[in-house]
Amino acid sequence: MPPRTEDTLPTGRADPLAMLFHARSVAVVGASGSEESIGGRPIKYLRRYGFGGRIYPVTPRHDSIGGLRCHASVRDIPGPVDLAILAVSAARAPKILEDCAAKGIPTVIVFSAGFAELGDDGRAAQARFVERAARLGVRVCGPNSMGAINLRSGLTATFSSVLEHAHQAGPLALVSQSGMYGAYILAQATALDLGLGLFATTGNEADIELSEVLDHLVRDPETRAVLAYVEQIRDGDAFVRAAETALKEGRPIVIIKVGRSDVGARAARSHTGAIVGSHDIYEAVFRQYGLVSVDTVDEMLDIARLVGHGIFPAGKRVGIVSLSGGAAIMLADACAASGLEVPELPEDVQARLRRRVPFAGVANPIDATGQLINEPDIYEEFLGALAVREDIDAIVLFFGQMIGYVDGLGSTVVEESVKAVRDSGKPFVMVAMPGDGRAARMLREGGIPHLTDPDRAVRALAALAHHVERRETLLRRWQTAPAADIAPIPETEADTEFAAKRFLAAHGIRTARERLARSPEEAARHAGALGYPVALKVNSPDIAHKTDIGAVRLGLRDAESVESAFDEIARAVEDRAPDAEVRGVLVQEMVPPGVELILGIERDPVFGPMVLCGLGGVHAELLRDFTLRRAPVDRETADEMLRELRGYALLEGVRGGAVADIDAVVDGVVGLSRIAVGARAWIEELDINPLIALPRGGGCVAVDALIRVRDRSTRPRPSPAARRRR
Amino acid sequence: MPPRTEDTLPTGRADPLAMLFHARSVAVVGASGSEESIGGRPIKYLRRYGFGGRIYPVTPRHDSIGGLRCHASVRDIPGPVDLAILAVSAARAPKILEDCAAKGIPTVIVFSAGFAELGDDGRAAQARFVERAARLGVRVCGPNSMGAINLRSGLTATFSSVLEHAHQAGPLALVSQSGMYGAYILAQATALDLGLGLFATTGNEADIELSEVLDHLVRDPETRAVLAYVEQIRDGDAFVRAAETALKEGRPIVIIKVGRSDVGARAARSHTGAIVGSHDIYEAVFRQYGLVSVDTVDEMLDIARLVGHGIFPAGKRVGIVSLSGGAAIMLADACAASGLEVPELPEDVQARLRRRVPFAGVANPIDATGQLINEPDIYEEFLGALAVREDIDAIVLFFGQMIGYVDGLGSTVVEESVKAVRDSGKPFVMVAMPGDGRAARMLREGGIPHLTDPDRAVRALAALAHHVERRETLLRRWQTAPAADIAPIPETEADTEFAAKRFLAAHGIRTARERLARSPEEAARHAGALGYPVALKVNSPDIAHKTDIGAVRLGLRDAESVESAFDEIARAVEDRAPDAEVRGVLVQEMVPPGVELILGIERDPVFGPMVLCGLGGVHAELLRDFTLRRAPVDRETADEMLRELRGYALLEGVRGGAVADIDAVVDGVVGLSRIAVGARAWIEELDINPLIALPRGGGCVAVDALIRVRDRSTRPRPSPAARRRR
Repeated sequence: MPPRTEDTLPTGRADPLAMLFHARSVAVVGASGSEESIGGRPIKYLRRYGFGGRIYPVTPRHDSIGGLRCHASVRDIPGPVDLAILAVSAARAPKILEDCAAKGIPTVIVFSAGFAELGDDGRAAQARFVERAARLGVRVCGPNSMGAINLRSGLTATFSSVLEHAHQAGPLALVSQSGMYGAYILAQATALDLGLGLFATTGNEADIELSEVLDHLVRDPETRAVLAYVEQIRDGDAFVRAAETALKEGRPIVIIKVGRSDVGARAARSHTGAIVGSHDIYEAVFRQYGLVSVDTVDEMLDIARLVGHGIFPAGKRVGIVSLSGGAAIMLADACAASGLEVPELPEDVQARLRRRVPFAGVANPIDATGQLINEPDIYEEFLGALAVREDIDAIVLFFGQMIGYVDGLGSTVVEESVKAVRDSGKPFVMVAMPGDGRAARMLREGGIPHLTDPDRAVRALAALAHHVERRETLLRRWQTAPAADIAPIPETEADTEFAAKRFLAAHGIRTARERLARSPEEAARHAGALGYPVALKVNSPDIAHKTDIGAVRLGLRDAESVESAFDEIARAVEDRAPDAEVRGVLVQEMVPPGVELILGIERDPVFGPMVLCGLGGVHAELLRDFTLRRAPVDRETADEMLRELRGYALLEGVRGGAVADIDAVVDGVVGLSRIAVGARAWIEELDINPLIALPRGGGCVAVDALIRVRDRSTRPRPSPAARRRR
Repeated sequence: MPPRTEDTLPTGRADPLAMLFHARSVAVVGASGSEESIGGRPIKYLRRYGFGGRIYPVTPRHDSIGGLRCHASVRDIPGPVDLAILAVSAARAPKILEDCAAKGIPTVIVFSAGFAELGDDGRAAQARFVERAARLGVRVCGPNSMGAINLRSGLTATFSSVLEHAHQAGPLALVSQSGMYGAYILAQATALDLGLGLFATTGNEADIELSEVLDHLVRDPETRAVLAYVEQIRDGDAFVRAAETALKEGRPIVIIKVGRSDVGARAARSHTGAIVGSHDIYEAVFRQYGLVSVDTVDEMLDIARLVGHGIFPAGKRVGIVSLSGGAAIMLADACAASGLEVPELPEDVQARLRRRVPFAGVANPIDATGQLINEPDIYEEFLGALAVREDIDAIVLFFGQMIGYVDGLGSTVVEESVKAVRDSGKPFVMVAMPGDGRAARMLREGGIPHLTDPDRAVRALAALAHHVERRETLLRRWQTAPAADIAPIPETEADTEFAAKRFLAAHGIRTARERLARSPEEAARHAGALGYPVALKVNSPDIAHKTDIGAVRLGLRDAESVESAFDEIARAVEDRAPDAEVRGVLVQEMVPPGVELILGIERDPVFGPMVLCGLGGVHAELLRDFTLRRAPVDRETADEMLRELRGYALLEGVRGGAVADIDAVVDGVVGLSRIAVGARAWIEELDINPLIALPRGGGCVAVDALIRVRDRSTRPRPSPAARRRR
């Protein structure tokens, strides 16, 4: 059985969440004498994993189980109880809950299935259950949870059969919304010789949910990183707070969000076909708050292996020593693909190494060639050339199967590598199959993780290097730009283009100069006042695709054209949208050419108002070239959003074009994000399309805009998302 | 030691390449009594792996080695010799080669280093060596090769210490340009319980190179797939032939091309910054000829595990049975991301399964839930519901660690799965850690590969499903479109825009109507003849960025504007390109608006002329949205190229735009590809930018073009690639 450390309760009995991992006394309600049953396994595992606290089986059916005295009710337990496990049917759970409250138990884990996962009746039962728990002051993990595990203390409050095999404790934590998959991750971690210390599965999350557990885990002093398997985040604010804590505490959250092909949390939202999917929002939030987001559990475990060895590269410059030229190429390729650098060694160092092995690659990557097998002594010199350099932040070694296969080489390489780690303080990663003998043990003890595949090793290293950099950026940014205090904006009539732009203009977004006309003559008068050329567009809350029905006229150069354009628009609307309510025709200045962007607000049910920006035309829609952030954003974040666009070069003036007024766009994004927060109570979606960025110094102008208000009108209105597909 | 099968020589002594894998008698020249030396290991391994043929140690220093009689020279060997291994210094190799020829040995493997990898002297020595070999009629694998291995027959003509451990033979073959990395792949394959039958490392490829070995391996009847580790392809034509053979024989080549971040093979080419990189060309060729291209060795081995079990899914429709809802989501996500479908089961089948387990997911993915652990019998019914369906091509199962951890469940699941494979004939893949006991063995024997990670399992399955579909497409396409017989096009003067377009027009590409003017008056006359509006552009072999220097005027509507535009252009050229040779000013019709494309020819040093097409504007350059194929291409391939563009929807008329004349563009690509082949002797690059695709029925028009001719002028000319960056 794995070694057990004495657990110290971090915050005393005050923190019910801590009891999931640090309880000293556990009641197992529904305890069973059968070691294979759900009520028997927790007791078996608590004893097998050497839990040092008190175990109280609760059942009226036995006097004792495996030498432990049973109690008929938790109320009968003599001493204090930190945690109760409810291994009972859903029907019995409410009664047990009352008992737990009466006994003063702060926290219960509810294994019982038969709640929300069973449909409406179950959902109602679950709601009643947690309401009662809240009233009683008991915190609930579950129902339908597989429990929580502290492998360090042996607190195995779970029925997962994954504990049938031994698992060693280590400096990683895992929280999983899937009990079964969480257990599988634990099994994989063990097969990789990777220790999870704390592990919780949150089940139906009726009370304690993911973010709260995350927040607890990232504060755990014995934890280096927290792995999170997520199907759905329920409390966006709490999640963001946990992410901020993680960053401050320096314990990265490595997260996999599954269900990306699913419409999932956003299935309830009206506008199918919107360009923004739920996955985009999750990814944007993960990036905004410095989580390490991964696509596969393999990637998560690769990163975990590095973090488990304390690897946090201080920068992105990598030194490579390889036994094989082919592997050197692959590692250099992988570095380039992952945004890592492989700085060339100075010529004098190269010359020195070349004198030693004339046909070696000496620039970095260092290809020591098969000569290293004949002459293992050269390794110290080759590795040393990189290890001493200030411009190298991390070192990747390739030895393939040779360490495990060729004894002499193996020990030299491993010894020298471990020594270099100690001397240089740099993080090392080895790509090799060291077998499971002495070499593997020495690597582990020397703090050098080994992975089999060069690409995966480099990707994991890169994820951490990028995380370290991102963390510094975000912590600095949050310090210099404290949270904006944004006053609520009262609901405003904004159901036409004209009204939407008036609203924007009133809140600091520059819009095209325009006036509303009710007659051809009035239109011509407005045009004269605005100055030619002008554009005319119908102003209606009901017409999304103005161009499609011929209700837009551009580049009108005199009064006569304006008047006849007015009439044409009126006729087009009569013909093609006879039921639309028309509120006049907009007469608008023709904004000079510039770079077209799209800016928007999307209210996400989990994370609240998000601000979107992308390049206009086909970019955002067709090529999905847009970025998102949770509002509000500061200027630095807005600038970062623009730079993330693949087509950013368009703003910088590609193909001899003028440089756009990027500063003004940044201001626009910031301003829109403040509107998003101020009007979060009533704006569902807002869409500026296009925003034209004029050449530098010229600013940017909202040319068209649409606002969709939340739950207000029963009359169907076209959504901005539908318009984007124009 | 691994089991050995009796090897049958497929083509008799006639095929020297076959000797690498099927020699019955091997001379080891430079044989050594030390089992650790390069001349000792092949003998050790040949005996340890149970080679059944004759082994002849050749050395004057011993009478016998390990009981085998030594000969002072290969000439002294009594019987015939199929293969000689040269484990001697580079200096001695030429003399030994003569001996081998004299003895009538058809094939030699040269371990000796000290040739091309050592620089100019070595390159010269290598050239002399292979010249001599060619004259003597001896085929050479190497020099600097690690040798070749047939694990089925025990023919281990290698010094690689990877054979210190036992490796089992299997239905896969591997060819690697890196000996060391190839050996590492073998070690990984063995760790994954994956059998490589044939394995060759090609070393410096002075004579026998990758493609020839590939061609041999894909014809091997005992091989199911060929893995290829490639740093550089030397003979494009031979490679393409091998790929075609592989497709016809139904043995996929799973290929990893390393060195993508390197300027590599194209470093020698003049135009840095061209949009097309060497990696793009490799990927295009791999796609064009139906190879399975992978980014990592992990991916290669995942696919190998499936192919090794004979998995070739007939279609893309996947059934999923999972013990965990989380895993079901992940598998469905992965299918969606990989282009696989997860068809929903009919309502009656769902109802039947739902009656069995009310809270199970029954639509497909089937989430059998933990109920399966309590009631393993339901598995037969759940799996059967998918296995019998005609609209399911492959089945993916998820059991995590449970099979290895829970005995009862494990045997039921494995037995039922194996039975379902047998009954349904469908390919099955299991995501699980079955341990290394009985369950794992039964899976293996039952033909069910197991992978640990759901994403990787699905990606590998998808790669094979796409390959099967691609193979059918290509075989049919090649049958219906036999290789085009294209006459050479003699070199033509084409160093200005005017000349380039005349050349294109002469070969069937429609170009903008235009005339060349030498004076303002002549320009106005031409404009009148062409019809207004017109464009004027300088016509010069020396000016690439005409717009930048103000030498282009668009939309000229009358004779007066044309005349003054002519003068302005003349002045601009005088000012800003005073040394340029000017050959008049082009007067060109203004082509109506349409979708802008770019079409081009790039002559690749390895694969010959490639044809490129992409969307114009920022798409091809900034967003790298272009496709490539080796010329010539047929209409179907050209159509496929267009459809691969991310911005293809632009041609289909996104945002209310007209549908472009896609047929005409397809004709243009086909026509250009025929020019590429016809003029392969002299066109280095050709660039049509833009080609304007008019609305359907209107055709497409080359508006600007540039041709760069091979090695003709000593005077530097701007290249089309440089112009693309305009």
